[in-house]
Amino acid sequence: MNFEETTLSSEVILQGIIFRVDRLGVRLNDGSTSTRDILRHAGGVGVLARSPSGSFLLVRQFRKAVESEIIEIVAGMRDPGETAEDAGRRELMEETGYQATSMLHLGRCFASPGYTDEVVELYFAETTPLPGDLQLDHDERVIVEEFTPEELDRRIRENEIPDSKTIAAWFFAQSKGLL
Amino acid sequence: MNFEETTLSSEVILQGIIFRVDRLGVRLNDGSTSTRDILRHAGGVGVLARSPSGSFLLVRQFRKAVESEIIEIVAGMRDPGETAEDAGRRELMEETGYQATSMLHLGRCFASPGYTDEVVELYFAETTPLPGDLQLDHDERVIVEEFTPEELDRRIRENEIPDSKTIAAWFFAQSKGLL
Repeated sequence: MNFEETTLSSEVILQGIIFRVDRLGVRLNDGSTSTRDILRHAGGVGVLARSPSGSFLLVRQFRKAVESEIIEIVAGMRDPGETAEDAGRRELMEETGYQATSMLHLGRCFASPGYTDEVVELYFAETTPLPGDLQLDHDERVIVEEFTPEELDRRIRENEIPDSKTIAAWFFAQSKGLL
Repeated sequence: MNFEETTLSSEVILQGIIFRVDRLGVRLNDGSTSTRDILRHAGGVGVLARSPSGSFLLVRQFRKAVESEIIEIVAGMRDPGETAEDAGRRELMEETGYQATSMLHLGRCFASPGYTDEVVELYFAETTPLPGDLQLDHDERVIVEEFTPEELDRRIRENEIPDSKTIAAWFFAQSKGLL
């Protein structure tokens, strides 16, 4: 069965700061039509970073969208023309002050495919500290938190880190025998 | 350290079909200000459904946002006033024709906390088939796919099912010894 929806029309209904929203008219497989609002995102990257001591480096930050301070793996958006891996290396340095000595692609996941095209590319990085200060965006406030593998595993399993990309990265790292 | 961002102003900049976008002016902890575009979502639910035979019931559908047909756990949005568990039971019946005989809360995850307030509540359901036809929305096309636990595990590990809520639900089910 072919469920593909043919695009009949497309209109930008919001040009936001970090995303755009398009309204698409679509034709379904029975010939009927519908409307889909779709958020267009530059693509995300998430990095599960291990320090030379074997601990994991995550970041704590206040996320206005969910009105709370949460812990996540290092993450960010791709700059125009930047590969996902390069974005991951850059975000790692900016947010933690560590440099990747290796980057292994763990997998990818859609953030919420019902309404956003965001794909998060997930990496596992071995790292080494860089001298110097963090280079955060002017409106970015993050602090690095270190966890032993056992502590991070416990926190993720007990749902104390309820972030989907972090859970997915941990699952893939475990599945690949990296932990 | 307190990273909380105080809301200075809030304006609806898009009233979409299934979500709204607000533009917030915020004050950071050093007194400087910034702007955040935030997508407001009714909240999602995801159900990892097991049939009486021990197979798992997932759904295949075309997702216009990512322009592809993908396999996901049963999922949907909460109706106004509906609990997450009730939404999960309803979506399960609508999309698969199976009824939940038990619903265990697995955990929750943020879809993409940088820009959306969407929280997905995840459940593990034991199910039994209902007589009668599926009750899909007029513009919804899904087909049910059954997987043995081994096959589903392989597909998720090999990243053939790159959906974050599906990966998270599988991780939690495994972690709780349900598989």
